[in-house]
Amino acid sequence: MAGTTKNETTDIAGMGYLNGIAIDAVIFGFHDNQLKVLLIAYKRTQLFGLPGGFIKDDEDVNAAALRVVTERTGLTDIYLDQFYVFGDYARYDPAPFKTIMKASGYDAPDEHWLLKRFISIGYYALVDFTKVTPTPAAIFDSCEWYDLNNMPSLLQDHTQIVEKALAALRNSLDDRLTGFNLLPRDFTMGELQLLYETVLGKKLLRPAFQRKMLGLGILERMDKKWTGGAHKAPYLYRFKK
Amino acid sequence: MAGTTKNETTDIAGMGYLNGIAIDAVIFGFHDNQLKVLLIAYKRTQLFGLPGGFIKDDEDVNAAALRVVTERTGLTDIYLDQFYVFGDYARYDPAPFKTIMKASGYDAPDEHWLLKRFISIGYYALVDFTKVTPTPAAIFDSCEWYDLNNMPSLLQDHTQIVEKALAALRNSLDDRLTGFNLLPRDFTMGELQLLYETVLGKKLLRPAFQRKMLGLGILERMDKKWTGGAHKAPYLYRFKK
Repeated sequence: MAGTTKNETTDIAGMGYLNGIAIDAVIFGFHDNQLKVLLIAYKRTQLFGLPGGFIKDDEDVNAAALRVVTERTGLTDIYLDQFYVFGDYARYDPAPFKTIMKASGYDAPDEHWLLKRFISIGYYALVDFTKVTPTPAAIFDSCEWYDLNNMPSLLQDHTQIVEKALAALRNSLDDRLTGFNLLPRDFTMGELQLLYETVLGKKLLRPAFQRKMLGLGILERMDKKWTGGAHKAPYLYRFKK
Repeated sequence: MAGTTKNETTDIAGMGYLNGIAIDAVIFGFHDNQLKVLLIAYKRTQLFGLPGGFIKDDEDVNAAALRVVTERTGLTDIYLDQFYVFGDYARYDPAPFKTIMKASGYDAPDEHWLLKRFISIGYYALVDFTKVTPTPAAIFDSCEWYDLNNMPSLLQDHTQIVEKALAALRNSLDDRLTGFNLLPRDFTMGELQLLYETVLGKKLLRPAFQRKMLGLGILERMDKKWTGGAHKAPYLYRFKK
């Protein structure tokens, strides 16, 4: 939560934003069989967290989530999906947000809107990390990619949010949209399998994987890939429109 | 939204509830190959909608959803799942809620908390409708089961919420929990197939269905069902613990 608009003054005053509801974005980056997650560090606090933000009074919630992700990545054409609402009372802890504001020179009173209970709507995205320009906001020290198994401690319940997002991403793998922007228009079964293996974090058996993928009815088989040596050329596939 | 607590005065004043966030519950009832949905009618308004409610200041969001469903059904042991957050600005329309309050004798000023923009967290449940005691709140004329293809017009975006919940329910069918409370502990493949066919709204081919179910690895095969005529007895199955 917090730290997403360009205008910090507006952010701190809370004018024009819905109170009590935040967005947290788990942006997974994939490239060359590596999976990473985008994290931000709040200025002079050593506090790490997920990119996030708030919803303007007249803004669609999904549009707010896209805005948050665009501000941090520079990408506008992103497959972004809600995966869970984090609404336990136990996640309510104003301490880190008091620290964050104090580190930016603002000694917030206890009744400040950012120190009240927030429910957070979790979104996840899967993007090609080489196409992203990680962009910190003014109140961040950094906005960077981290290996999933080498993340710093995150504030509040953000570590659990990442875990839940990863589970949702893994569950959604058969949804054709997930891989849409990560593979070339035409790809081989081997390339698709590598994407699956990286996200799932395990090796898959080729024949069973191919059978399952073809059984889903989401792939269209194109001509064979021309490799020079004709009989071993793999087929190319495309996601069906 | 609205109409869920036993104490209408508290409800209307909004004391002790989070502002701007509601819960809507799509409670699907299944029995004997019929699928229904539980709807409420607000008193003297002809306005129909989903059972819903608000979140207490110190209450977990999931606990609030369970409370809402328990109040309307009498059931406490329910498989209940979040499926989507409805947060478009376009859904903001105070008119029906003004009508609802007026019909109960309360002429709400425009700045009343119930007339402000609400984001709604959608939950769905699938229950055996013969086990439910539909229970209207004081501000309802009725709380009743309706056939999915014979629903009245619903207020706000509640019709789309039902449609989205049905899509989520269909997607989740392979999750073993969905059928957990609807089938006896031991059931035949035929009984499981009838449940799937009813929820999906279409006939399935027996061999493919059986192959798919067994392939999911969620079923444990028990002894054959004793029917008298031994060689045609079907196997019984159980969901794996």
